Amino acid sequence: MNEHIARSYDQELDRLDKLLTQMGGMVEAQLSDAITALMKRDSALAETVIGGDARVDALNREVDEFVVRLLALRQPMAKDLRAIVAALRIAADLERIGDYAKNVAKRTMALNQVPAVRLASGIPRMGKLVQQIIKDVLDAFTERDADKAHAAWSRDEEVDGMYNSLFRELLTYMMEDPRNITPCTHILFIAKNIERMGDHATNIAETIYFVVHGTPMTEARPKGDTTSFTVLDPLTGATNAFDKPGTS
Amino acid sequence: MNEHIARSYDQELDRLDKLLTQMGGMVEAQLSDAITALMKRDSALAETVIGGDARVDALNREVDEFVVRLLALRQPMAKDLRAIVAALRIAADLERIGDYAKNVAKRTMALNQVPAVRLASGIPRMGKLVQQIIKDVLDAFTERDADKAHAAWSRDEEVDGMYNSLFRELLTYMMEDPRNITPCTHILFIAKNIERMGDHATNIAETIYFVVHGTPMTEARPKGDTTSFTVLDPLTGATNAFDKPGTS
Repeated sequence: MNEHIARSYDQELDRLDKLLTQMGGMVEAQLSDAITALMKRDSALAETVIGGDARVDALNREVDEFVVRLLALRQPMAKDLRAIVAALRIAADLERIGDYAKNVAKRTMALNQVPAVRLASGIPRMGKLVQQIIKDVLDAFTERDADKAHAAWSRDEEVDGMYNSLFRELLTYMMEDPRNITPCTHILFIAKNIERMGDHATNIAETIYFVVHGTPMTEARPKGDTTSFTVLDPLTGATNAFDKPGTS
Repeated sequence: MNEHIARSYDQELDRLDKLLTQMGGMVEAQLSDAITALMKRDSALAETVIGGDARVDALNREVDEFVVRLLALRQPMAKDLRAIVAALRIAADLERIGDYAKNVAKRTMALNQVPAVRLASGIPRMGKLVQQIIKDVLDAFTERDADKAHAAWSRDEEVDGMYNSLFRELLTYMMEDPRNITPCTHILFIAKNIERMGDHATNIAETIYFVVHGTPMTEARPKGDTTSFTVLDPLTGATNAFDKPGTS
């Protein structure tokens, strides 16, 4: 391979990294704006987030097309091939995080149609944590730092813990007053959306680990959302979460 | 390329198709069993579905590894390259459908801890429809039939319609009696899981279309879940869904 071709190949790999970093920054901003819109009951900002998702989707398509072109023209081997296929996965995870941010914004608009309810303070805390995890994962990607990716990955357990508490809290509000049911259902889905964003951030961390080491992260995933198993007694408010180890 | 290599390359592409078909069949069965377990309150069957998800995940990894090996060894071009990259996407969508089936089974186990509630009859109907769509999409994949893929894709709108009705129905039950809140919340998430399976089936249909035609399906996606915008009056039961065209 002559030097000219080699140099432009490196430029292409750089460009792929830049596309993903740009997409990541955009998704971080979407999440941050969605949470702000929710907390401030700001429908205009929610609309901006909803409209902004098209740009995330467009970047995802750009990454896909660029990857297919790279594979066809460069026929990369080993580590480069791994990184290029990983880019597809990372872009898909970022796109999904963007979708969830859009959904938070849509539900915010529904919430703004009804009187404000006591908004679980867990939501913005959970949102901030997930934002931080996404940011750390993106830094780990830029620096190809598998340890940093692993550290971010392990914090997803905190997100799941917050979600589990929120889930119970919201069920309690619903039982207190039927007028809370509709808004709390939306808030429940918002919490679930944020929890899912955390899962996609851990996917990205696992992909980075694989790119760096060439082997999958073998450790079991941190324990996930256990609320699938939660039942809450409507009279006593007592919860009974029977978690099945390894199946969350 | 000599004939021996060419023949074994075709065999490899065949094998990739077979892996995806096998994975699709497994995911169809997981969904079907999850719905049966839910309807019959069969915790043993739900446990089988939960345990069975590991095999879906293992097949997904097998597809991923096989694709990376194919890309490295065969350096495919044009249509083959498109099909091979598409296999990655289809496997990822099937894996997600499998995850949702597992989640339905987990929530079924929680529901079986509390007295049976009037189970929205929409759930099995919605499950059956999504199963049919997945089946049609898998047939379309085997036959590389873009028209069949498009026909399956367009039925996702029915799924969304069913989900929207269910959402309102379940909120009504919750308002009627606080004892319904916990089980109906699980059923709400189950309905949402099934609706999301339909979305992943439409993703697969779009991927098939792209493989066959080399251009994306340009038509706008069928209108999705509009419940993000739904508010339900707790006193009158009246709904107010303000859908934003093009943002669902």
